[in-house]
Amino acid sequence: MSASVHTCSPILGVLGGMGPLATADFMRKLVQSTPATRDQDHMPVFVHSVPQIPDRSESFLAGSDAPWPFLLSGLRILETAGAGAIAIPCNTAHLWHARLAAATDLEVLHIGTATSDAIAAHPAGLTRVGLMATSATIEGRIYHDALRAAGIDVMTPSARQQTDHVMAGIAAVKAGELGTATSLLQSAATRLIDDGAQAVILGCTELPLVLGGKSVGASPGESNASHDVPFFDTTQLLVKACLAWWSRSKAAQLRSESFSQ
Amino acid sequence: MSASVHTCSPILGVLGGMGPLATADFMRKLVQSTPATRDQDHMPVFVHSVPQIPDRSESFLAGSDAPWPFLLSGLRILETAGAGAIAIPCNTAHLWHARLAAATDLEVLHIGTATSDAIAAHPAGLTRVGLMATSATIEGRIYHDALRAAGIDVMTPSARQQTDHVMAGIAAVKAGELGTATSLLQSAATRLIDDGAQAVILGCTELPLVLGGKSVGASPGESNASHDVPFFDTTQLLVKACLAWWSRSKAAQLRSESFSQ
Repeated sequence: MSASVHTCSPILGVLGGMGPLATADFMRKLVQSTPATRDQDHMPVFVHSVPQIPDRSESFLAGSDAPWPFLLSGLRILETAGAGAIAIPCNTAHLWHARLAAATDLEVLHIGTATSDAIAAHPAGLTRVGLMATSATIEGRIYHDALRAAGIDVMTPSARQQTDHVMAGIAAVKAGELGTATSLLQSAATRLIDDGAQAVILGCTELPLVLGGKSVGASPGESNASHDVPFFDTTQLLVKACLAWWSRSKAAQLRSESFSQ
Repeated sequence: MSASVHTCSPILGVLGGMGPLATADFMRKLVQSTPATRDQDHMPVFVHSVPQIPDRSESFLAGSDAPWPFLLSGLRILETAGAGAIAIPCNTAHLWHARLAAATDLEVLHIGTATSDAIAAHPAGLTRVGLMATSATIEGRIYHDALRAAGIDVMTPSARQQTDHVMAGIAAVKAGELGTATSLLQSAATRLIDDGAQAVILGCTELPLVLGGKSVGASPGESNASHDVPFFDTTQLLVKACLAWWSRSKAAQLRSESFSQ
């Protein structure tokens, strides 16, 4: 019995658990960003949140493909459950995006494309943005190429800042130590801004959990008094891409239904 | 390919989307209540969040079984994905709990049992608790029988309070109007306490979203200055039951593996 028997709406498949708190944050933002007056107006989702997948950043940097079988297994489970598209609320996992997209007929939304498009379209005409992300996301150039093609320079933290502040801060989020994480990550963001970044990409879905205020696309009313530049919340921008996919899919479904009558 | 190929841990299946914000809240509480220092320490979960299911309270009160095929479809999808037990972060949906439990070999955790056990075990020796819940949860006696068996009286709001404050407040949460919801629901809780309730059951998973502070089982540091009596957060108590299931299952799996070697 497929879920599509019981819902007229296309279902989003979420390949999550990387980390699990980021997946919960994605789900909350998805609900709170959907125009709805009752349960039934919300997007149906099936979430595969299996955090036992090996660390994406460590694996990539060590030249290991260990996460791949877990990603592929999750994709297959989401396909079987009836998903109509896939979203992955983890930037680093996008190092395997092209292989996942090649392994399925479903659209696999891209968090980096969603974010790079929002940066290029920002009214301030940004030319120099700071990237806070895992070392693997930086090494794997998930953001560099798309942004440079749009004429935007990407600044990254120094090697020491990257290790002692960004990666340590991300690990602290994963350990549930949000106070420690906030202090480490705020300091890394400040350094990027002091060095000339006109905006900061929260290019790991753990980061909006502690630096989420004043983010582009953040819920109205949130603010982050510490900084004057825009922060790009990649979780929120992936949510926006999911909502756009959902609108397109519902419209296509309606056209197809009216055609078949 | 089953998920169990790639994780040694039993997987929780979440029959959610009732409503979707309550499901996101359940996921956050599950992650934040799990002792973990890294992603891989967290519980693997599949979440079926399909809010297109007809309203449980309206259906039950109208004598309609409309939610059942949606619940059964969700259960089958979670079984196929490889879930080892089912949790339902919606009190009203538990009106169908016995049928779901009869339809599967999996353990289907019960939010009402988890909550009633916590109330009966509370050190204050509670004898009279207020129940805030949907009208169907009250009519269907999800809490009444277990609590009366434990010698605890259940107080419910007046018919007018139930309609104008509790049900209106729950609808406001589902519409994303959290400010309106807070004011309506605080007032209903205050009335129950003024009338002699020694504690309040947040017996609908929308309620902890706005009345969650100072709840039994709430995260340390949260507080709700408005009330002096304990609030029982049913979402958090379901999370606790899930963690207990996970511990039991992992222990059983280890015993079985050591036996087979």
